[in-house]
Amino acid sequence: MKIRKYLPILEWLPDYRLSIFHQDILAAVIVTVMLIPQSLAYAMLAGLPPEVGLYASIAPLLLYAVFGTSRTLSVGPVAVIALMTAVAAGKISTSGSADYLTVVLLLTFMSGAILTLMGLLRLGFLANFLSHPVISGFITASAIIIAFSQLKHLLGIAANGHNLPELILSLVHNLSDMHLITLILGGGSLAFLFITRRWLSLWLEQVGVSHSLASSLVRLAPILAVIVTTWISSFFVLSEQGLAVVGDIPAGLPPLTLPSSDFTLWQQLWIGALLISIVGFVESVSVGQTLAAKRRERIDPNQELVGLGVANLGSAFSAGMPVTGGFSRSVVNFDAGARTPAAGAYTALGILIVILWFTPLLAALPITTLAATIIVAVVSLIDWHAIKHTWRYSKSDFSAMLVTIMVTLLQGVEVGILAGVALSLALHLYRTSRPHSAVVGRIVGTEHFRNIDRHQVETCSRLVLLRVDESLYFPNARYLEDRVLEMISENLHVQHLVLSCQAVNLIDASALDSLESINSRLKDAGVLLHLAEVKGPVMDRLQLVNFPSHLSGQIFMSTFDAWQALGPEHKV
Amino acid sequence: MKIRKYLPILEWLPDYRLSIFHQDILAAVIVTVMLIPQSLAYAMLAGLPPEVGLYASIAPLLLYAVFGTSRTLSVGPVAVIALMTAVAAGKISTSGSADYLTVVLLLTFMSGAILTLMGLLRLGFLANFLSHPVISGFITASAIIIAFSQLKHLLGIAANGHNLPELILSLVHNLSDMHLITLILGGGSLAFLFITRRWLSLWLEQVGVSHSLASSLVRLAPILAVIVTTWISSFFVLSEQGLAVVGDIPAGLPPLTLPSSDFTLWQQLWIGALLISIVGFVESVSVGQTLAAKRRERIDPNQELVGLGVANLGSAFSAGMPVTGGFSRSVVNFDAGARTPAAGAYTALGILIVILWFTPLLAALPITTLAATIIVAVVSLIDWHAIKHTWRYSKSDFSAMLVTIMVTLLQGVEVGILAGVALSLALHLYRTSRPHSAVVGRIVGTEHFRNIDRHQVETCSRLVLLRVDESLYFPNARYLEDRVLEMISENLHVQHLVLSCQAVNLIDASALDSLESINSRLKDAGVLLHLAEVKGPVMDRLQLVNFPSHLSGQIFMSTFDAWQALGPEHKV
Repeated sequence: MKIRKYLPILEWLPDYRLSIFHQDILAAVIVTVMLIPQSLAYAMLAGLPPEVGLYASIAPLLLYAVFGTSRTLSVGPVAVIALMTAVAAGKISTSGSADYLTVVLLLTFMSGAILTLMGLLRLGFLANFLSHPVISGFITASAIIIAFSQLKHLLGIAANGHNLPELILSLVHNLSDMHLITLILGGGSLAFLFITRRWLSLWLEQVGVSHSLASSLVRLAPILAVIVTTWISSFFVLSEQGLAVVGDIPAGLPPLTLPSSDFTLWQQLWIGALLISIVGFVESVSVGQTLAAKRRERIDPNQELVGLGVANLGSAFSAGMPVTGGFSRSVVNFDAGARTPAAGAYTALGILIVILWFTPLLAALPITTLAATIIVAVVSLIDWHAIKHTWRYSKSDFSAMLVTIMVTLLQGVEVGILAGVALSLALHLYRTSRPHSAVVGRIVGTEHFRNIDRHQVETCSRLVLLRVDESLYFPNARYLEDRVLEMISENLHVQHLVLSCQAVNLIDASALDSLESINSRLKDAGVLLHLAEVKGPVMDRLQLVNFPSHLSGQIFMSTFDAWQALGPEHKV
Repeated sequence: MKIRKYLPILEWLPDYRLSIFHQDILAAVIVTVMLIPQSLAYAMLAGLPPEVGLYASIAPLLLYAVFGTSRTLSVGPVAVIALMTAVAAGKISTSGSADYLTVVLLLTFMSGAILTLMGLLRLGFLANFLSHPVISGFITASAIIIAFSQLKHLLGIAANGHNLPELILSLVHNLSDMHLITLILGGGSLAFLFITRRWLSLWLEQVGVSHSLASSLVRLAPILAVIVTTWISSFFVLSEQGLAVVGDIPAGLPPLTLPSSDFTLWQQLWIGALLISIVGFVESVSVGQTLAAKRRERIDPNQELVGLGVANLGSAFSAGMPVTGGFSRSVVNFDAGARTPAAGAYTALGILIVILWFTPLLAALPITTLAATIIVAVVSLIDWHAIKHTWRYSKSDFSAMLVTIMVTLLQGVEVGILAGVALSLALHLYRTSRPHSAVVGRIVGTEHFRNIDRHQVETCSRLVLLRVDESLYFPNARYLEDRVLEMISENLHVQHLVLSCQAVNLIDASALDSLESINSRLKDAGVLLHLAEVKGPVMDRLQLVNFPSHLSGQIFMSTFDAWQALGPEHKV
């Protein structure tokens, strides 16, 4: 049972049959074909040599098949994580330099270690720090930055920068160096991809192709662009005309690599590694859950952390880059009929075959085509609908989203996501800092008590009954203190305050301190504090620290008991 | 009304009478006498020349009297803030160097600006980020660091470091340079202060002195130590024997100073300034609230931010250092009978008189005596009781406290408080990440529904009724998604899921996304999602984004309506 939890492969491998194999292998072939240009493109986006993307599509997929819980997630390099890798590594080293790969490998290792550790410690809930508006805004802004960062390849010019103003300035500055052949091939690919994406599947469906097959075919359009432009580039030897191409990729197994032990580097990289881990995890889990639910399957978020963590560790030891589950590939894998994670393992074998024997075919592939495929892929990540939707639904959530987008665009990905997280946490604290509470009075002749502002109720000037409608913890502890003290300072006749706690499931140490200070401050002001309807577990805790014996007043079973003991019927 | 809110002085000044003046002036004289050695000592602790402490005790007090809402808070330099100032400024400049004062002034200005801005924007709730265990652990650890940092003055040796290991190593390393006269005067003062603190008030009470007068007299013991050791130092001209003394303090009004406009410096200091602001505010407000409650007065936390902010701005423009409300001084002020903030203004005048005419009297004051007064003051901040209490009450809160203490001691104040805040937020997210919810069934023959695990209820295999007992927002949105999907994957007969929302006061954008994905995933799995008992304001929001029309199922007024429509009585 325990082993099965940590080795999800044991769930499906014993029942593996030939019919499942057939489905898995078909999906694997399709995904492999899709993954080749993607892994080259995302390696380029991360500022790495193309083979690194292929290396990152072998070991991680094999390991995820053993440790992952999603049956159809396609792990490998993805756009947003590649950008975050470029930013984190680019702060320390320059793309193309000898130690850039060392930095990326350490980043991959640290990200793998963080994910694995979070999984083993069941810390998946930490992903909750990223609210949906923040992650959605972050991905939209990252996609815009990525699209702009690829324009230089499309135009055949040099440009740099990890945020929008830098990129645009740099592009404008070098625009005069534009290379026409590059632009024609890239622009042509881009136009072809946008047109197929918009109209091909409609047209296919009109001629009778099923919806899911049609959309799978559309997702394979980049392959066609790659094949055609590679053939053109190769036939006319355009690299001699100044067209940038992928070039020679070393054939052979991925080399074994070990993470750097440079402690200073660890210190510089940990924030980047943490952000890559969390963003990658959140993205991957949401894809995995969407697909799993369609077949009433389940994924286990904490085990997913382990699966992705081990995949990244594998990537770090085999000269790869940070990986996670990609959205479009996983959907293709699912639609193509993958039944088990074995499909991922077969994809890894496919990539292995490519890197062993077919790399010469990729040498003439124009970089500008890869840039076009990246642009088309990331443009679909820009989520205008989510922005409008959030604006309409909640101005406070929208503000968190807008700040994330703007700061990411203007300052870059790391500051952007941190700003979004900080703001959404602050807004959350603000919303939860006012526990719902109401002064209640007695409905005449009954044992029921209701809000005095909404109902005709009986009250007593000596006695205030305050019903607390939420658990008490540090974000709202101070507010209760303020509210009670304000009530007492406004009403000089009060002698008794009863807190009615039927909705209080938890009192944390901060709230306990607040209760103690409310108690002693009320005592100084000549008012007794009483509690009513305290739940069992809460009471047990309070007794651990002898709170009931410090309490100036009493603890009543019910609000009505308190009313009888302290209310108008009680003669002073 | 509006003006009164921002100028609390208008609350009390119009009613100011001679009798109140008499009470205020008496308190002011006592507090002035206490503040002289304190301001010198805390300036020293912050690595500043002694006069800076006196300057910081003039303008800030006058401004707080105008803008502050506490009637008895005594604003000025305090120990923990002085330490934090030393740490923040020490990272950029060296104490004693020409630009150290520039850095501290900018820090004071930024802290003042942050506080004022937070107050005007009503952001007082941000102080909730600091849970009680974190602030209490932080102050305990800071007090230990401060006490150790003063040992060098007591021993007459050199030592450095902003955390415990550095300090201890540095002390041990230089122990051989110990200066005997310094140790005798400092050790004697220390022993005297500890003895008076422990026994004097008991003895005074035994001979008939009232409790509050007795404890005020004890708080004035440091003055006696200062007078006696200054006299000894002066009479025997001990400074010529190597005793470190305060030395010449320039007489005259505080100079006008302007904050530096060096942008790099701003960037380096803002985290330090923010932490100083928040810690200072939290400490000050808790002192202010304690004292105000004793007289059934009120303080307004947001206006307190403005009051403290303007006080710090005043300090920055008059060559001062960061200030906030101090605990022991405020208690003395209160016990001595201060009625209004005018007492603070009179204290400022007292300090002004000292700096204009009486600084020569302070020249022979031994530094070792000041160190002794600091040690005695901070040792009382070490709160063993809170540590034991929190351990007994809640292991989770205790862990946040322990991490704060350990990281502060080992890594210093800034990392310490940030680690504490991060951990307590993470623990809070963890606790709130599981919204209380229960699968409910019908109590036979009634319209009531109860938890199926606790009551004998009627259920239906086609229908799951899930009662959600909390508001839905990003920390818990994912959990609900997981829970629902798990329920559906385990129970293949389910056709309808009803979320009963009577306790849901809020659905934020993340939770809305979760609901939408629950809805579409359930639809993929052939299960319809229904809602019941949605509150009015929540429903209004959902309608803004047309959620009801996307919903695969219906929205019922009550759980019973849902039961009647979908339950066992409904024939499929």
